[in-house]
Amino acid sequence: MYEVEVKVRADHERVRERLEALGATHLGTVRQVDTYFDAPDRDFAETDEALRIRREDPGAGSATARVTYKGPLVDAVSKTREEAEAVVADAEATTAVLEGLGFEPAATVRKERDRFEVGEVLVTLDEVEGLGEFVEVETEAAEDVEAERDRVFGVLEDLGLDPGEGIRTSYLGLLLGADRDDRQ
Amino acid sequence: MYEVEVKVRADHERVRERLEALGATHLGTVRQVDTYFDAPDRDFAETDEALRIRREDPGAGSATARVTYKGPLVDAVSKTREEAEAVVADAEATTAVLEGLGFEPAATVRKERDRFEVGEVLVTLDEVEGLGEFVEVETEAAEDVEAERDRVFGVLEDLGLDPGEGIRTSYLGLLLGADRDDRQ
Repeated sequence: MYEVEVKVRADHERVRERLEALGATHLGTVRQVDTYFDAPDRDFAETDEALRIRREDPGAGSATARVTYKGPLVDAVSKTREEAEAVVADAEATTAVLEGLGFEPAATVRKERDRFEVGEVLVTLDEVEGLGEFVEVETEAAEDVEAERDRVFGVLEDLGLDPGEGIRTSYLGLLLGADRDDRQ
Repeated sequence: MYEVEVKVRADHERVRERLEALGATHLGTVRQVDTYFDAPDRDFAETDEALRIRREDPGAGSATARVTYKGPLVDAVSKTREEAEAVVADAEATTAVLEGLGFEPAATVRKERDRFEVGEVLVTLDEVEGLGEFVEVETEAAEDVEAERDRVFGVLEDLGLDPGEGIRTSYLGLLLGADRDDRQ
């Protein structure tokens, strides 16, 4: 399964109006704290991979954690890449296992995510600490990546956003001030 | 926290009689399937480390999975080593994350474990597929490793077993026929 995703800087107020006009479904808001790790054997910035532990809190004390591996880009424009993700019971214990293996926490990204669904396309309004407001439009493709990319571009245009302004640099990369980094 | 542990080959029937005489508490029986991984950047057999995913089924369909990192030996006689362990929701998804990072499943150990407690010492009767019957006596030490080792040796003697016959080779190592390997 591939993730097809485009991210742009966008004023949330205007996008919310468009989402309402499109009849989007509001999925909910969560707070996410992402810790990215460096590898002992290679430079993830160079190999275009990422290892992340995400703590997600949708409120009411029901925090969850997931560990995710992101592989190198398959399609550069849409940020399509392979991904493997596992739910874990305890972010701290999982960090200890990764540290034993030689992975080291390198940086942390904190954000509020507000999620909507337009058809089968996911639209996410991100307020990132230290960076500001972004919109991500995303879908999953089992095979026909090109068709999914067209759908994602279509939704961006419906929201008054320009697919040509897609930012390939990840929040992590933006926070670190690196423009060669395109992990999410 | 360190794990202090001694393992010997032993006929289970005799040991069960001794456990009963000692008033040991029976904790229960589980089936464990352990998958060990090779690392992309180093030879765990040489560095004396291990990465394992353990699927544990105590019956009644309540299977769980844990991922564990074991560090090099701190004390050779008692097999004391540092350990980090995390509960995961899905062994297959966790395997996919590890494979993304470059770790590869190398070998699998299957066994039935019958657990008892004598005082604060854990006594485990292992029936290992392809290897036969073993007894492990184990405790955890925050600081005074030597005192914990003496307790472990004492329980072995109470069970009619000889601490001098401790096997440092792991089940994995025994299965692979390697005697330099001493991971559990």
